[in-house]
Amino acid sequence: MEFLNLTEIFPTTVKPSYRLFVVDFNRIRSPMTVVLWLIVACILKFGYTLQPKAFKKLPESCFLILVGLIIGGILRSLNAHDVMPLSPLMFFFFLLPPVIFDAGYYMPNRLFFDHLGTILLYAVVGTIFNAFALSISLWGIGYTGIYGTFIPFLDLFLFSALISAVDPVAVLGVFDELKVDKVLYILVFGESLLNDAVSVVLYNVTQALIQIGSENITGNDILIGVAAFFVVAAGGTAIGVIFGYFGGIATRYTKRIEIIEPVVVFLVAYLADMTAELFYMSSILSVTFCGITMKNYSLLNMSESSCLTVKKTVKALSNLTETLIFILLGVSTVNDTQEWNTSFIGLTILLCTVYRTVGVFILTAIANPLRLHKLTVKDQIVMSWGGLRGAVAFALVYMINSGSINNQPLFASATISVVFFTVFVQGCTMKPLLLALKIPIGVDEEASLSERLHVKFQDHLVAGMELISGSTGKPTQRLRYKAMDRQYIRPLLLGQAHSLDPKTVESIQLNGFAS
Amino acid sequence: MEFLNLTEIFPTTVKPSYRLFVVDFNRIRSPMTVVLWLIVACILKFGYTLQPKAFKKLPESCFLILVGLIIGGILRSLNAHDVMPLSPLMFFFFLLPPVIFDAGYYMPNRLFFDHLGTILLYAVVGTIFNAFALSISLWGIGYTGIYGTFIPFLDLFLFSALISAVDPVAVLGVFDELKVDKVLYILVFGESLLNDAVSVVLYNVTQALIQIGSENITGNDILIGVAAFFVVAAGGTAIGVIFGYFGGIATRYTKRIEIIEPVVVFLVAYLADMTAELFYMSSILSVTFCGITMKNYSLLNMSESSCLTVKKTVKALSNLTETLIFILLGVSTVNDTQEWNTSFIGLTILLCTVYRTVGVFILTAIANPLRLHKLTVKDQIVMSWGGLRGAVAFALVYMINSGSINNQPLFASATISVVFFTVFVQGCTMKPLLLALKIPIGVDEEASLSERLHVKFQDHLVAGMELISGSTGKPTQRLRYKAMDRQYIRPLLLGQAHSLDPKTVESIQLNGFAS
Repeated sequence: MEFLNLTEIFPTTVKPSYRLFVVDFNRIRSPMTVVLWLIVACILKFGYTLQPKAFKKLPESCFLILVGLIIGGILRSLNAHDVMPLSPLMFFFFLLPPVIFDAGYYMPNRLFFDHLGTILLYAVVGTIFNAFALSISLWGIGYTGIYGTFIPFLDLFLFSALISAVDPVAVLGVFDELKVDKVLYILVFGESLLNDAVSVVLYNVTQALIQIGSENITGNDILIGVAAFFVVAAGGTAIGVIFGYFGGIATRYTKRIEIIEPVVVFLVAYLADMTAELFYMSSILSVTFCGITMKNYSLLNMSESSCLTVKKTVKALSNLTETLIFILLGVSTVNDTQEWNTSFIGLTILLCTVYRTVGVFILTAIANPLRLHKLTVKDQIVMSWGGLRGAVAFALVYMINSGSINNQPLFASATISVVFFTVFVQGCTMKPLLLALKIPIGVDEEASLSERLHVKFQDHLVAGMELISGSTGKPTQRLRYKAMDRQYIRPLLLGQAHSLDPKTVESIQLNGFAS
Repeated sequence: MEFLNLTEIFPTTVKPSYRLFVVDFNRIRSPMTVVLWLIVACILKFGYTLQPKAFKKLPESCFLILVGLIIGGILRSLNAHDVMPLSPLMFFFFLLPPVIFDAGYYMPNRLFFDHLGTILLYAVVGTIFNAFALSISLWGIGYTGIYGTFIPFLDLFLFSALISAVDPVAVLGVFDELKVDKVLYILVFGESLLNDAVSVVLYNVTQALIQIGSENITGNDILIGVAAFFVVAAGGTAIGVIFGYFGGIATRYTKRIEIIEPVVVFLVAYLADMTAELFYMSSILSVTFCGITMKNYSLLNMSESSCLTVKKTVKALSNLTETLIFILLGVSTVNDTQEWNTSFIGLTILLCTVYRTVGVFILTAIANPLRLHKLTVKDQIVMSWGGLRGAVAFALVYMINSGSINNQPLFASATISVVFFTVFVQGCTMKPLLLALKIPIGVDEEASLSERLHVKFQDHLVAGMELISGSTGKPTQRLRYKAMDRQYIRPLLLGQAHSLDPKTVESIQLNGFAS
């Protein structure tokens, strides 16, 4: 599994007779490949902005996949398969973390925690429901012989597990561009982040069960599977929170080494990711919660220019890797061999869409009575149609051991089909759907002055009351108030308000509390 | 030579029976190793700031090497050699480029080009003189039998070539901290950057000559060696300048993709590095000149926040990799086997110091009559004593093919000794020397208001005259005036001064012209 061998001392390329002009591509092959793919990503991102306005109806993600397909076709015709860098581990280790960290670090905490219950319902119960409903249906229909081949239930369940999870990168790609209502956005995007534990566990446990053999499975194995979910979810979250706190504390002391301050944030986040991977916990949960936790402190501790650097770097990296994920999705599709089966693939696409809608409507019926902000039927339609699948499913299907699961090529083509269907058909029709439903798009995230004033007034009031009474409210808000208290309210109460530079106060407000 | 295999699809780690708690370090070994070393670098950088003031006399580079030695010792006793990531290619491909790009991109262009003649004299003639003087002396003394072993002349010349070049990272490490007079700094640091072509060529040509065998060398081979110098130097510079222009042009259009704007600068710079490596040209020259050229445009084209992001990221990366280079220098020293030879090593250190001084004094005698700003004897002492050797020599000595050159282990220990002598003895005594010579240290780079006003007044005057007359002055200044003209002077002349935001004008001045 060693794929980036750091310990090797490279033999020198000795040129027996000195030549004035030498070309040695092999020596720089790997870093050059990475740089060239990144440059391709930049060029395509630029190219997208140059399109005539008439073509702009195509979301950027679709454009990138399409160009990826063309590049893949060209590479295939040149027999240059080996320049394709999207291996599953490469995806999970290098391309996905920046996108997830961006999501966590710039997560609007209040919005996220206000809707956490509903998000968890969709992410956990919804994903499990989808996986079971899809696999049982596909299995039952399989007895009609319509697929022309027998597929064991566990194999189908493995496939259903990986295809049921809504994908964070795909959701971001579509929702970010449309600037849809922020509650709808947080519900779908939050679900796509938090369902990772479910898919990891369902995927890993099912693989293990297939190894054990369906006839040897005991009730114990099922119980272990259930326990595994809690371990993977709680473990990933705990690792993220611990590293987040650690990073937050570290930024209190990085003033002494301000020049490398921004790097600390990234190192801690990546350490959280790698540690979760080390224990096979949910790395997406780990990185998300590392970001959510760390920013409460780091944004206040670090210098303003470090905060800006982190922000610009995170945004640039996540945007670039997201772009690359879509391009490579297109390229890989052409490069890999699949097995086509119209009835199986057609049924999968149909059932995925149906069960997504059924799941959303059932779960909303459960959630709505407990919610302050009720979800309308329109909201539910958007949430159903916005349940895009993407690169995570794609990477997982290529991680299936094709030796032990014969239907891997079929599952691969079915996964690609579902991903393409959701990204192209659902992604492209999202805007017309929103317009038809009269749901506002292009919503500016900036709150109105009155809203910000009121929120801030309440924050200060609560913080002041808490400070005087000595007791504190919600844990998520407590963090914020504590930091506020130290930097901001205490000086006010102690009559040192004049000691605060107005610019600092403004920046604290903008960075820490506007969310 | 493939060391970062991107094309491999990794087999899944199938766990036959599902276990709730798994630790799988191998899977994350490589990225984790990199992250952990970077974290070690951060911690040590922080640790250095915590030292009691009494210990601060030790330059940071020495502190880092010392801790590296300790870490190396611990790793050795644990038999954990394989966590050592400093292979020569790893050094040249990943650790050195950020430091060099920082040097080029934030090079004070005017100062550098004003002293370019003198810098080239030291870098080219000085390095060649040192290599020949050292090798001939070591060879001549070798006939007394003092080394106890025979070392062929070409082997000695190979060693002399790599040890004669002043090292940019070592020079930065000492001079940056002391904030020595900027002319002295640019002379030594400029030399350390521009001598790369000389060392690359001497090193490669000598290796080739050794392969050919000293008895088969013809005059033709020597001529090719001389030609190679021009190819490697001009080629590296040309690649850098071309990519620099390309990057500068690219940043004119990156406003459309502002989110990934800062990444473009880095990608272009790294592409310049890799392209130079592809053709075995001088990659240090390439990256230096890419930075020098690109910044003339990118600093004016990019948004202010992108410029700040690039600056903070470049400084953070170069600082971190510089730190890591010193630490790994210490670690590698313990980890590798060498061969000790007191007389050879003692003589090398002595002769290196002597010839450095002789070289500086001779070349200054040639340069001074042509210089406006004459170099005093004091200056020459500092330049001689500041000619530190470092990690480049270290990496080169480990790239020697020990199969064809038997004395490689001896050369390795001699290189380490010279590097340690220059970094520790010369580095630590630099400050007392400067104080004794009454050369001001801790010079603030910020020019006085009057100086800045005068320089800017002259710039504007010249630019205005050039604009009216249609002819332009020095090529290096022309660039600046052109950019100034477009963004700054033309609106002024056209009476559109009011259209310029005062903040923009200020930032243009600070970013582009303060150097």
